[in-house]
Amino acid sequence: MAPGPGFSDEQNETLCESESTVYVHNPHLDGMKEDILYHFNLGTSTHNLPAMFGDVKFVCVGGSPWRMKSFIEYIAGELSLEDPKAEYPNICAGTDRYAMYKIGPVLSVSHGMGIPSIAIMLHELIKLLYHARCTDVTIVRIGTSGGLGLEPGTVVVTKQSVDATFLPRLEQVILGNTVVRSTDLDQGLAEELLQCSKDLGQFETVIGNTMCTMDFYEGQARLDGAFCSYTEKDKQDYLTKAYESGVRNIEMESSVFAAMCKLSGLKAAVVCVTLLDRQKGDQLSSSHEVLHSYQQRPQILVGHLIKKMLQASASSRS
Amino acid sequence: MAPGPGFSDEQNETLCESESTVYVHNPHLDGMKEDILYHFNLGTSTHNLPAMFGDVKFVCVGGSPWRMKSFIEYIAGELSLEDPKAEYPNICAGTDRYAMYKIGPVLSVSHGMGIPSIAIMLHELIKLLYHARCTDVTIVRIGTSGGLGLEPGTVVVTKQSVDATFLPRLEQVILGNTVVRSTDLDQGLAEELLQCSKDLGQFETVIGNTMCTMDFYEGQARLDGAFCSYTEKDKQDYLTKAYESGVRNIEMESSVFAAMCKLSGLKAAVVCVTLLDRQKGDQLSSSHEVLHSYQQRPQILVGHLIKKMLQASASSRS
Repeated sequence: MAPGPGFSDEQNETLCESESTVYVHNPHLDGMKEDILYHFNLGTSTHNLPAMFGDVKFVCVGGSPWRMKSFIEYIAGELSLEDPKAEYPNICAGTDRYAMYKIGPVLSVSHGMGIPSIAIMLHELIKLLYHARCTDVTIVRIGTSGGLGLEPGTVVVTKQSVDATFLPRLEQVILGNTVVRSTDLDQGLAEELLQCSKDLGQFETVIGNTMCTMDFYEGQARLDGAFCSYTEKDKQDYLTKAYESGVRNIEMESSVFAAMCKLSGLKAAVVCVTLLDRQKGDQLSSSHEVLHSYQQRPQILVGHLIKKMLQASASSRS
Repeated sequence: MAPGPGFSDEQNETLCESESTVYVHNPHLDGMKEDILYHFNLGTSTHNLPAMFGDVKFVCVGGSPWRMKSFIEYIAGELSLEDPKAEYPNICAGTDRYAMYKIGPVLSVSHGMGIPSIAIMLHELIKLLYHARCTDVTIVRIGTSGGLGLEPGTVVVTKQSVDATFLPRLEQVILGNTVVRSTDLDQGLAEELLQCSKDLGQFETVIGNTMCTMDFYEGQARLDGAFCSYTEKDKQDYLTKAYESGVRNIEMESSVFAAMCKLSGLKAAVVCVTLLDRQKGDQLSSSHEVLHSYQQRPQILVGHLIKKMLQASASSRS
């Protein structure tokens, strides 16, 4: 499938020829005097983006601002870059839309909940990486999800992100017309993450399809929303069909994340922990301590991946 | 149009007969031992919801947590309920998904950006108001938007929320099937808000249709996203068609807000200020001071409405 409608073969070929650069596909950008990344409170005429972000090689994104701050603290420790006296300032402190933290080559950005919220962030992140002239960037979404047929706490690395009818696609409306984009992710990176879990031996990790929905309650067949017009059997039948099609977890951002990263040439993966087995319940009733320890697992896995990739890159240079 | 698929005529009639109660439409809820409102970090067995929220008569929701805190400070002053020594604590301090503040009969809740994010909040808010046995609740979304053919700073009170093809509907996927819901809002409340603006005489307010999109960049025909496959003329043609259909502003939450409030019997309005005229540009390049003063206008308008409604209610009792 082509990266997207409206892009010429030439543009698509450029995308395939070199995988090292972050691409925008927008002829209007170069004619703009300045580019204001409004929801980050950053801009090309107010900030020196190449100086601030030019060394970024890994971007980690997740819904919760707290979790993305906790990730940067964790990765600073793992990479021995932490300074016990240092605070990690929120680079987007001038806005409360998203939070952004950086240590060495690692950028950590929150994206809120749902496809529209992460899409705004990704448009501005891709432009940021482009303006900063970043190369060879790997991006991972770390998140939480509902599992299917898995022990709570299992980590799922996404093979394909599928929609609520189990198809690997994202429908977007542009100028009132529906266009369909591919939600392919980097299979090599997914396999590498699975290997990282084996290296660590701390928790179960599987590769499976991830269903991305527009709603947490009715959209995920929950019985505990404000509205519910179906039975427990309807719910179980739907989740069984999802499982049989290869779905192992359900969340709300992976499809547009996959589509936009593919379009921009970013090597991308989705790593979500399952907080409960949806075939056994709907409510998140585990203790905060248990849920918190589950939420650290994608961080630990991605931390290990980053260390491994940085070590490999250092040995190839020496 | 019926409130939604799967609800019986009897349920729909109940909805119409009494407008004072907050309705859930979910037979499963009554059988649950407890209801955990996960994204609020509240629950029926851990919190006394009727004691905490039973007196709520007005709910104001908006994207930004900072703005919703500023709204509660503003309304406390307007209602002479402020205590100069008091902080307004975030009722949802145990989570960073949403922020919630309360003063007297007014609740202020943030909802993040986009339909999925506000939908999660509304499912849990409607259940909260139901569990708290609230009655006669009015709810207003205060937000920011891009305007069409209006001076920046104009406030738009939504007549109908329309989708990206200018139709007053919300498509939702439930158990893999697409269902369509009505996005009607309370016309009397919209007229009352217009009257409030005339009372105040501080800024221009109009009633018009609001287009609700799934994306801020390509979904709103912007030329400044990471991807753009259309021309300036394509953009202008699309926005002209939107204007001709009655659209006066564009944002990202009104359709599901209208649909869910209608289903639950909440009297609802959408009040958004326009930060720019989209027919003249895409970037938000006004100074932060100007944008900040614009963002206060929906707060001022809704503050006036709340005062007026409380005064009317007090005189009808005396």
